[in-house]
Amino acid sequence: MQKKGIFGGVIAPVLTPFGEDGNPDAGRFVDHAHWLMAEGCTGLAPFGTTSEANSLGLDERMEMLEELVDEGIEPAKLMPGTGTCSLADTVVLTRHALDLECGGVLMLPPFYYKGPSEEGLFRYFAQVIEGVGDDKLRLYLYHIPPVAQVGFSLPLIGRLIKEFPNIVVGLKDSSGDWSNTAAILEAYPNFEVFPGSEIFLLDGLRKGGAGCISATCNVSPKRIREVYDNWQGPNADKLQGDATALRKAVQAFPMIPALKAIIAHYRGDAGWAKTRPPFTDLPAAEAEKVVRILAGEHNFKLEFDKAA
Amino acid sequence: MQKKGIFGGVIAPVLTPFGEDGNPDAGRFVDHAHWLMAEGCTGLAPFGTTSEANSLGLDERMEMLEELVDEGIEPAKLMPGTGTCSLADTVVLTRHALDLECGGVLMLPPFYYKGPSEEGLFRYFAQVIEGVGDDKLRLYLYHIPPVAQVGFSLPLIGRLIKEFPNIVVGLKDSSGDWSNTAAILEAYPNFEVFPGSEIFLLDGLRKGGAGCISATCNVSPKRIREVYDNWQGPNADKLQGDATALRKAVQAFPMIPALKAIIAHYRGDAGWAKTRPPFTDLPAAEAEKVVRILAGEHNFKLEFDKAA
Repeated sequence: MQKKGIFGGVIAPVLTPFGEDGNPDAGRFVDHAHWLMAEGCTGLAPFGTTSEANSLGLDERMEMLEELVDEGIEPAKLMPGTGTCSLADTVVLTRHALDLECGGVLMLPPFYYKGPSEEGLFRYFAQVIEGVGDDKLRLYLYHIPPVAQVGFSLPLIGRLIKEFPNIVVGLKDSSGDWSNTAAILEAYPNFEVFPGSEIFLLDGLRKGGAGCISATCNVSPKRIREVYDNWQGPNADKLQGDATALRKAVQAFPMIPALKAIIAHYRGDAGWAKTRPPFTDLPAAEAEKVVRILAGEHNFKLEFDKAA
Repeated sequence: MQKKGIFGGVIAPVLTPFGEDGNPDAGRFVDHAHWLMAEGCTGLAPFGTTSEANSLGLDERMEMLEELVDEGIEPAKLMPGTGTCSLADTVVLTRHALDLECGGVLMLPPFYYKGPSEEGLFRYFAQVIEGVGDDKLRLYLYHIPPVAQVGFSLPLIGRLIKEFPNIVVGLKDSSGDWSNTAAILEAYPNFEVFPGSEIFLLDGLRKGGAGCISATCNVSPKRIREVYDNWQGPNADKLQGDATALRKAVQAFPMIPALKAIIAHYRGDAGWAKTRPPFTDLPAAEAEKVVRILAGEHNFKLEFDKAA
């Protein structure tokens, strides 16, 4: 299909592996990114919620992004998360991503102080955009109220698009509420909107959505890409049904530890399962269970012979 | 009274003033800190919620803390906030505070990911303490579930005290729930517990509490200190009543913008009222109203002739 906007397609919020010392593991991270692109991802969104990005330090985030670019991931395909609670740090991370020529950034609202006014959030984004001071900025709003608590109302989205039409170009909707995604697509048809789960991929595409940015793209990019490539074909609903069933099987477990455990299993690399506190690793019995359910009931298996 | 623990007394979470350029204003900040100490604060907790600390960048926080120490605030009296969502950045800020010989630090739990397990939070603090690697660390847990959403359960507090008896020495309870503060005081009588509002100052002291760390200490340190100094005297309840009434009058307004507006008024310095997004400044009519109510109904006035 013709892609919508800059990033239209299937985008993985890249998991962040950790080494024995607890630091982000650049080798595993870069290998995983190359594997994701080889398996059909059209872009990567490192340092999202799934990436445990909010557990990483500023320096760690910048160093790991540099690793991806240095090791051959095309920066135009990268939409790193750069939103923190802090206006100042958000400017630092966003400038850094632009210096590396990333195609866009995915930005959380400031999420510490609860119940901010629409005016306060508008000014926050206006000041971030001014602070970054680069017309090449392509900013995707990251709406994930179940975690961030603070989100983007329809009027706020409209105000940001109107004020910054070439900069505020899209949104990831991780509300889990299809009616919200549908309302955004109806209100702003040229906006590049990604549901935060492949469960809404087909519905989204049929309504003018741009694809999806989904945690499970870390393990099943191919299956999700099939939905994307065939959404107007005769078997679109069947493909979506399979993708949805797989997603639901994974999200019955704690998502981030489960995704890491699945990769650890198929890579034969136990260290991949490591999370950073406040997360805890998936217990061994649970890890065996998720692998067994996916393989037995969803014909799911990961192959790494194509890995870089 | 004999002070309890290291910081026992009346502690202000210092407001952070901003300059015209939107950056933290070191001159106003240092002047305010000296005024607070001259007015009777026994210690200062810069970079708390009231300080808009979570809207500040890592560098801004470190630079402003250095300003306080360089300009003569005794580091032993400082309990800066150093908790961020990120284990790595929390270690950076905590080490920096220790390098400056601060008497303690006030640490939020990692607050981005919601519903972390007790085990995950325990490991987070264990790894922060290990990462800081300094026996001189005196860590106060910052419990503020209305904002951070993530908080400290009674068993988690107990586990941290048991594992790190000379490091995890106290807690600020900003739950606003007296029964929670009372339960902590009962369970851990040697723990240095500060209610997060002077409303609970007298009740706290009577139950073994250490004082209070309260936003309103930024404007009424003297009145709060009077409660602290006279808590066993005949007029303790009357003093507490006056302090409580004043607090309630202030908190009927958006707290942080209102405190800044009050200081701006009495200092004759309009720039003091400036907040950083996502906050918005108190509208002029509201600012006049809060000043009028405090002066008219609570005999409240700030004097700055003693300012450094």
